[in-house]
Amino acid sequence: MSKSPEEEHPQKAFGWAARDKSGVLSPFNFSRRVNGDNDITIKVLYCGICHSDFHQIKNEWGNSVYPMVPGHEIVGVVTEVGKNVTKVKVGEKAGVGCLVGSCGSCHSCADDLENYCTKQILTYNARYHDGTLTHGGYSDNLVVEEHFAIRFPENLPLDAAAPLLCAGITVFSPMKYYGLCKPGMSFGVVGLGGLGHVAVKFAKAFGMKVTVISTSLSKKKEAIEHLGADSFLVSRDQEEMQAAMGTMDGIIDTVSAFHPLLPLILLLKNHGKLVMVGAPDKPLELPVFPLLLGRKLVAGSCIGGIKETQEMIDFAAKHNITADIEVIPMDYVNTAMERLAKGDVKYRFVIDVANTLTP
Amino acid sequence: MSKSPEEEHPQKAFGWAARDKSGVLSPFNFSRRVNGDNDITIKVLYCGICHSDFHQIKNEWGNSVYPMVPGHEIVGVVTEVGKNVTKVKVGEKAGVGCLVGSCGSCHSCADDLENYCTKQILTYNARYHDGTLTHGGYSDNLVVEEHFAIRFPENLPLDAAAPLLCAGITVFSPMKYYGLCKPGMSFGVVGLGGLGHVAVKFAKAFGMKVTVISTSLSKKKEAIEHLGADSFLVSRDQEEMQAAMGTMDGIIDTVSAFHPLLPLILLLKNHGKLVMVGAPDKPLELPVFPLLLGRKLVAGSCIGGIKETQEMIDFAAKHNITADIEVIPMDYVNTAMERLAKGDVKYRFVIDVANTLTP
Repeated sequence: MSKSPEEEHPQKAFGWAARDKSGVLSPFNFSRRVNGDNDITIKVLYCGICHSDFHQIKNEWGNSVYPMVPGHEIVGVVTEVGKNVTKVKVGEKAGVGCLVGSCGSCHSCADDLENYCTKQILTYNARYHDGTLTHGGYSDNLVVEEHFAIRFPENLPLDAAAPLLCAGITVFSPMKYYGLCKPGMSFGVVGLGGLGHVAVKFAKAFGMKVTVISTSLSKKKEAIEHLGADSFLVSRDQEEMQAAMGTMDGIIDTVSAFHPLLPLILLLKNHGKLVMVGAPDKPLELPVFPLLLGRKLVAGSCIGGIKETQEMIDFAAKHNITADIEVIPMDYVNTAMERLAKGDVKYRFVIDVANTLTP
Repeated sequence: MSKSPEEEHPQKAFGWAARDKSGVLSPFNFSRRVNGDNDITIKVLYCGICHSDFHQIKNEWGNSVYPMVPGHEIVGVVTEVGKNVTKVKVGEKAGVGCLVGSCGSCHSCADDLENYCTKQILTYNARYHDGTLTHGGYSDNLVVEEHFAIRFPENLPLDAAAPLLCAGITVFSPMKYYGLCKPGMSFGVVGLGGLGHVAVKFAKAFGMKVTVISTSLSKKKEAIEHLGADSFLVSRDQEEMQAAMGTMDGIIDTVSAFHPLLPLILLLKNHGKLVMVGAPDKPLELPVFPLLLGRKLVAGSCIGGIKETQEMIDFAAKHNITADIEVIPMDYVNTAMERLAKGDVKYRFVIDVANTLTP
């Protein structure tokens, strides 16, 4: 149907790609489009490994196209800018998150909510306007419309800030939208992984009282002593959960596994909000009575728009918020995926692309 | 434990009460407390029959205390006022809805949200401050704190407005709270019963485009020609539902039976809101992915506060909104309950208490 990027594009690129649903990544030569008037080219320095990379290289969502170069937590240095570009200059740092395109003309786009544009173009495993496959940041360079690039403040460490472009905005955006960002509020974070640990940091920066809710007591010390949470609840401890009933203004739920919502809804105060950002593949059980009796709500949210992603990065720079990461070389990526599947990472792998991606 | 009202209270009262979980109602002599300084006494003229009356006379929620005089859609004429009362005068019309008391000192009460006060006192089947059982409007008179009385504008027909005190505020309050009350919005109403038919009327008065969503095509003519809905969707018609996907700003779901939420969530635009006011007794299935992808929410709401109930009644008077009712005599109430169970009423029974309640 459409030509392969290899045939279509003039700029050489090199990365690691999955070739089939085994998900095994291996070196891959491909190409990028020529840098257009509104484009910038980035030499990739770091790229985070998001859980969704894992799902997509294995075609777990059923829509994978191969070869696939994953990666949507990308930071690098600008090497070329089109003549209309004003956002960044050559030599400056820039980031690219989950999106590289949208329709530009719908209500969502007009409202700076490209993430809800039905014609949004994902950074990889999607079709660009020209019909060619998009490829992500497990690669040496990237061409992107300046609109979808994020300026990186100088003081933000590039490796540890890379995951903010997906994990960070995914929690920051709903906290802002649902008003769960006010000093003194009581806020719960369910699941202490890539999303959850960043949510704790943003929540603390907003001045909220933060409780981590986890199935496992083993994370308590880490949550409180290292991440700065105010308290910790073991969700299986009936007594603890009972004592905390009706105490929280909002909860962000980052868990993708099937799990009960009732205990979380009961933790909320009246008018409290439970925001889902994890995506269980089966429906969850929603008890309606407790929603009614406390005028509570269960809501969803999906990444964030480009303008808000910039706000989030600027906020993170101001408050010294980064992800806790383990930097890995490119050729460790398959091992990293195996460890990710077991939850064996605190809290995000970031590939040191510039120093370790060699042909 | 506590004395019976018969022993405790000086004012004679007469009504119809359920005596056990058969739910059969029969004549019942009881008493009301003396009219205190902050109280008013109402001679009951009309009382609506709410679905929750049906549930409670049969102890379907497991908390019924007998004898029980149901009824919380009460309108009447004021016959006595305490010395501190300023809201109404003797001879004026007043209404009483679901609540006759609350703690008066919590956040909810301070925010005019007595309906979310954990110490709220329901109009019947509850314990008043003095420990005695409350009794509702299937009776000749009622003593109530003036705070919990609603002034009735002269132009509002008392019989047809009575159901607004529960059914009306139950839909009005969430429409206001969730911002689903703006001219030009597209609004869905699921279920065309006591709550749903009033929701259609309020939604039209707010200037919204209203779609009724029902399992049965048989209600289409009624919904559009009589109630003024703009369109009608049969929820089992895949093609119709598909065509309406992503078109609604909000939906109010009045259905208490177990039913799927996914089709309703799909009808919502991005950032759309599905508000539940029916209370299924089993958890519903909540698909999370569609919530995330459109930043949608599923919320609950339960009646409304006294201040907002007054606003609702004043709004109804201004826009000539009443319930569609079938006025019945007191001794028809057991038959009415049977018909209610079968959904055989358009849309609310209202008991003509003053003219038909005879000792």
